[in-house]
Amino acid sequence: MTEQLLLDPTRKPSAAGVERAAGKVADILPKTPLLPLTVDGKTIWCKAECLQPIGAFKIRGGWHRLTDLDEDQRKCGVVAFSSGNHAQGVAWAAQRLGVKATIIMPADAPLAKLDNTKKLGAEVITYDRLADSREELAAELAGKTGAVVVPSFDDPWIIEGQGSTGVEIREQMIAQSGAAPDHLVACCGGGGLASGMSLVNPEADITLVEPEGWDDMKRSLEGGSIVPVQDNPPETECDALQTLIVSPLTFNVLKARNANALAVTKAEVHHAMRVAFEKLRLVVEPGGAVALAAILAGKAAVTDRTVITISGGNVDRDRFAAIIGA
Amino acid sequence: MTEQLLLDPTRKPSAAGVERAAGKVADILPKTPLLPLTVDGKTIWCKAECLQPIGAFKIRGGWHRLTDLDEDQRKCGVVAFSSGNHAQGVAWAAQRLGVKATIIMPADAPLAKLDNTKKLGAEVITYDRLADSREELAAELAGKTGAVVVPSFDDPWIIEGQGSTGVEIREQMIAQSGAAPDHLVACCGGGGLASGMSLVNPEADITLVEPEGWDDMKRSLEGGSIVPVQDNPPETECDALQTLIVSPLTFNVLKARNANALAVTKAEVHHAMRVAFEKLRLVVEPGGAVALAAILAGKAAVTDRTVITISGGNVDRDRFAAIIGA
Repeated sequence: MTEQLLLDPTRKPSAAGVERAAGKVADILPKTPLLPLTVDGKTIWCKAECLQPIGAFKIRGGWHRLTDLDEDQRKCGVVAFSSGNHAQGVAWAAQRLGVKATIIMPADAPLAKLDNTKKLGAEVITYDRLADSREELAAELAGKTGAVVVPSFDDPWIIEGQGSTGVEIREQMIAQSGAAPDHLVACCGGGGLASGMSLVNPEADITLVEPEGWDDMKRSLEGGSIVPVQDNPPETECDALQTLIVSPLTFNVLKARNANALAVTKAEVHHAMRVAFEKLRLVVEPGGAVALAAILAGKAAVTDRTVITISGGNVDRDRFAAIIGA
Repeated sequence: MTEQLLLDPTRKPSAAGVERAAGKVADILPKTPLLPLTVDGKTIWCKAECLQPIGAFKIRGGWHRLTDLDEDQRKCGVVAFSSGNHAQGVAWAAQRLGVKATIIMPADAPLAKLDNTKKLGAEVITYDRLADSREELAAELAGKTGAVVVPSFDDPWIIEGQGSTGVEIREQMIAQSGAAPDHLVACCGGGGLASGMSLVNPEADITLVEPEGWDDMKRSLEGGSIVPVQDNPPETECDALQTLIVSPLTFNVLKARNANALAVTKAEVHHAMRVAFEKLRLVVEPGGAVALAAILAGKAAVTDRTVITISGGNVDRDRFAAIIGA
């Protein structure tokens, strides 16, 4: 990729970019497994991204973005804002590349996510999720230090990087079930993962799943233009999906694909976490379980070749024990 | 393989047999991942067999044995005895091949294991672990019906089938870390998995891990001949490793390799389950966590290329929640 293209502010995420990201990811990370699960006598396939070294797919976007920084950019470091999984993805990539990372995280993020980000060598700055603007904090810091801002979804590299999940899914489905997926069911915060996967799975229907009360992508797709989360959204355990407004980069890809979106309840998420425990032997965080929740609740269709994302597994021990033991 | 060899009562497990088993397993089951874990600044590699469709490596031996049955044997069905994971492995293979399976299980086996074995279409007969002889029950049933007895470890096919884990480990280590393992740390009940893996990893040191009070393989190897578990063994949560005496087939392979063995405590197992939860996002049953427990307790060495087995993840929800939440 030429330097000019790398710096193009109008660059859009592309299928070719996702394939390029997938190649870079394959060089350093083995494919996460695509695990079969029987639901009402039919098999669905679960992409276990909670098994990534940081416990979430976000390592992909961080790696794709940071490996495309030029030498001068690497010297100035990066700054990111995240509830925790993107934080760890950027920190992991930065540590591996010897780049300084500063991460702006909500003060109420799960302890496991805060701790793990620090352990990966990043400097962590906390903020109040409802009072402060993390975008402004990041821009201010970048202005002072020259650091490159790495957004959690509103960025072509991040979308392409997360989309590499979809390249693996496609290859694994062909190897394991004989054909490409016809239905992708993905968690949706800002829509980075879903839009990236959509670019490389053009024959699949796309279903996006959000937590109840945080279904701004659903309302945006239904209305045809981006609307934010409504005022005073409810508390949710799905911290990874608490995005207040999606971005034109992700929205336009998903709108063009006629993606459907739906919301799941807390009880449906808990049930999905218990099923993932019993049938897949996976630790899944609430936000990582929404796609499975939609399937189990009968809200998303089980087709001949449905693939769902199990997107993260960073959940505090006592919280998980309370949900699983109930 | 000729019919004569299949019926040879003196047949020994062999490296060639393990490789043949690995080929058959590869035809139906994707490789389970080999996950990196940092321990005191060094990387160990964890073979996540809890991600098999039945939640344990035992699916391998069941598949290798049952696919080698001849037509007449298939018609008579199979009978197996097991605390649960071998039960599910045989039941899974039998269901897939259309063979009737009868499984003799201890009445105090985890509910998840009893339920899952029944759901796989097997007929389950329960027995009293300390009062009844499961071997005699199986032999009696086989005498009546002509069913083939499928032991849980004392059988060349079972050893070779479980050993296919070691073929995958070897291939994955070369791909992911550049060279074959130099140290394999494996759970040990009857020693089927460990002896099978040893046959195809001749350059690796072998460490076997047993639960405290059930360290008969350790005492056997130290004394040079097979001795049973001592009278009145303590209660253990490692139901998968409660073998009262090992077999010449497994013992002789491990003795020839100068395998070391050691025992881990309940507290060490619980700690390992919590680390697997937090760092690997895996649900691991007590017996599946003993190898990790040995590493974390400093009882097994971390070499340049150490691989451990995470052998199973079938644990009841409330039990897991109590351990993880503590």
